[in-house]
Amino acid sequence: MAIASYIRDLMNSKDASVIRKMFEEGSVLKKQFGAENVYDFSIGNPDLEPPAEFLAGISEEALKQCKGSHGYMPNAGYWETRCAMAKKVSEEQGVSVTGDQVVMSVGAAGALNVVFKAILSPGDEVIVPAPFFAEYTHYVHNYGGILKPVKTLSDFSLDVDGIKTAVTDKTVAVLINSPNNPTGKIYDGAEIHNLAKALEEQGKKYGKKPYLICDEPYRDIVYDGKEVPAVFPVYSNSVVVSSFAKNLSIPGERIGYIAVNPSCEDASEFVAACVFTTRILGFVNAPAFFQRVIARYWNVKKDLSSYRERRDEFIKIFQESGIDFFVPEGAFYFFCKVPESARGDDDKDFCDFLKKYRILCAPGTGFGRSGWFRISYCTSMDTIHNCKPALKQAVHDWKKNI
Amino acid sequence: MAIASYIRDLMNSKDASVIRKMFEEGSVLKKQFGAENVYDFSIGNPDLEPPAEFLAGISEEALKQCKGSHGYMPNAGYWETRCAMAKKVSEEQGVSVTGDQVVMSVGAAGALNVVFKAILSPGDEVIVPAPFFAEYTHYVHNYGGILKPVKTLSDFSLDVDGIKTAVTDKTVAVLINSPNNPTGKIYDGAEIHNLAKALEEQGKKYGKKPYLICDEPYRDIVYDGKEVPAVFPVYSNSVVVSSFAKNLSIPGERIGYIAVNPSCEDASEFVAACVFTTRILGFVNAPAFFQRVIARYWNVKKDLSSYRERRDEFIKIFQESGIDFFVPEGAFYFFCKVPESARGDDDKDFCDFLKKYRILCAPGTGFGRSGWFRISYCTSMDTIHNCKPALKQAVHDWKKNI
Repeated sequence: MAIASYIRDLMNSKDASVIRKMFEEGSVLKKQFGAENVYDFSIGNPDLEPPAEFLAGISEEALKQCKGSHGYMPNAGYWETRCAMAKKVSEEQGVSVTGDQVVMSVGAAGALNVVFKAILSPGDEVIVPAPFFAEYTHYVHNYGGILKPVKTLSDFSLDVDGIKTAVTDKTVAVLINSPNNPTGKIYDGAEIHNLAKALEEQGKKYGKKPYLICDEPYRDIVYDGKEVPAVFPVYSNSVVVSSFAKNLSIPGERIGYIAVNPSCEDASEFVAACVFTTRILGFVNAPAFFQRVIARYWNVKKDLSSYRERRDEFIKIFQESGIDFFVPEGAFYFFCKVPESARGDDDKDFCDFLKKYRILCAPGTGFGRSGWFRISYCTSMDTIHNCKPALKQAVHDWKKNI
Repeated sequence: MAIASYIRDLMNSKDASVIRKMFEEGSVLKKQFGAENVYDFSIGNPDLEPPAEFLAGISEEALKQCKGSHGYMPNAGYWETRCAMAKKVSEEQGVSVTGDQVVMSVGAAGALNVVFKAILSPGDEVIVPAPFFAEYTHYVHNYGGILKPVKTLSDFSLDVDGIKTAVTDKTVAVLINSPNNPTGKIYDGAEIHNLAKALEEQGKKYGKKPYLICDEPYRDIVYDGKEVPAVFPVYSNSVVVSSFAKNLSIPGERIGYIAVNPSCEDASEFVAACVFTTRILGFVNAPAFFQRVIARYWNVKKDLSSYRERRDEFIKIFQESGIDFFVPEGAFYFFCKVPESARGDDDKDFCDFLKKYRILCAPGTGFGRSGWFRISYCTSMDTIHNCKPALKQAVHDWKKNI
């Protein structure tokens, strides 16, 4: 007996697992050379601790121990938690959302799987601006869907005309991630407005209006006064999925949600379908304990300013090292160009090369853009400082083909 | 735009959602008539609180707040937690299992989805003795598999010859659940031995040896000195999935695991595939906090004796009411025959009829056995006592066709 052959193929494909593999290789390198001598920028595992008020909330909730508090609840989640998320989304989107329009999920990754299981039939297409979060390919493919990347413009903004052309009668959804992983780009109000207009037009043309799915776990992590624009007021068939993995630094706890635009033409059926797929995919419900904590503490004060400091430090290092990069407007990733060299610009080669200097980064190919690589800077400032000599040396040696 | 049509069909199929629907209807009835006047035996949501020592462990872990304790860890889970589960499974199976052979999961439901995603290709078959836990149909169907029920014998023991005949070159796995939901049957050592022999033989005949997947969340809930026999020593291609939902009464926390037999011919590839599917299905990892709690407190003393008391109380009530039933050897469900009546023996009709008496039970059709219904007795003894007049009246009226 053996595992399914298509799973084996996926596991063996180089692109698929590269980020997680780096993360796990990083653990091995750290044991070998000491954690302070490995510069691990591979994964988006926030180095900041959750806010003190939130940690206090965890302890408080643990001490309560109400009867039945670890038991099943409706698959959609606790009503109190759904209402708290509705309040959050209402504030962010400037549209009144109720608890009925929210389904709690096992993180944003769980949320996307639940949504795609609910809306995709085999052969359906999901359009995504590229570069994009590497796992999206799986999340769509799991349900027989086809992920159709449309390259962004050179500043990583949306190519609305390109997306419009890509829409066909098979398009079920457009998936955007803003602030974007891996580029740090925020799609601004004008882009969202134009995208909405294009989708309305194509929706009329093909007799079905695609869902616009907004994956927003980085919404709170923004720089230079930028803001993530609301989508609900400009496009009815829109859905927000998010989590507290990044803004509250609790990715391991798997707590997220799905919120559907109340103006969506089939909002209640969409929610019912997500509740159903939450159940049949075996999530059953978002973890009870963190649902309770989040219901009360989602809105604690967060100091995310150190991400800006880290970003600015990296900008200096890149400038000294001769690395081309895009200045992130949000999230905590740099998307950088592989330096020119007689070695070529293969991003996987470059990331392998960096490993010799104990620098771990993710190749851009996994994000749908070869010739680039991603640096995750949700690491300590010390790691960033300390990597400078190694990174400068690595880039020097790469360029000189040493 | 709309949800996927096959999802709509599944949602509208009567069998699919009946148990959860009862659970959710129960909440409405309780608001209307008062909780004490609704006899909700619909779902396996344990009424016992987690053991005091375990609750203390939750508080202790919450107060610790080690750096990074809510962050990502490897997809398979914390090494410490995997080793603790290996110890547990080693004790239960009498075979030495290591942390490498364990993957932590989002409950047993998450575990089964992870396993089926890892091993099923479209058209593959999974054999299950019927009656069976209703959700299995979805868990197999999610990955293009076909669930092939084989009726048990009249005492709900395994029809090994029937299973043997059902194995073909498309059979990838046999899924057993012991103690069984909905019957409370434990498949004994002789049955497991005969099943293993049959699968060995068919494995040779067809050139592939099916996996034997044992879903064991009720292993600790057994009566009358019965024990759940070990499977690892008798069949190499075996896998245990389990959770702490039932024995520690924490179903809402979604914490479970997969353990593969170290003698399995492709154990390490099987584990790697489960780690991969944990990731791509969006589970990412079992919730961090409860992984930490479980690593230390999985083995706390549990007093599950009240389930036996409740079982025995129900036996008296059934005898007085004239309901035929199977005496459960484990778990906390009764599988009962719909009483004879001019109304026929349609289990969905009967469960609808019981609702008028504010008694909520699950029709057997959902479990692959019409003419029967399931009573979940992980409810308070008061509920069981108080339902007696209503149940007697209901059965009387049903039989007299009133």
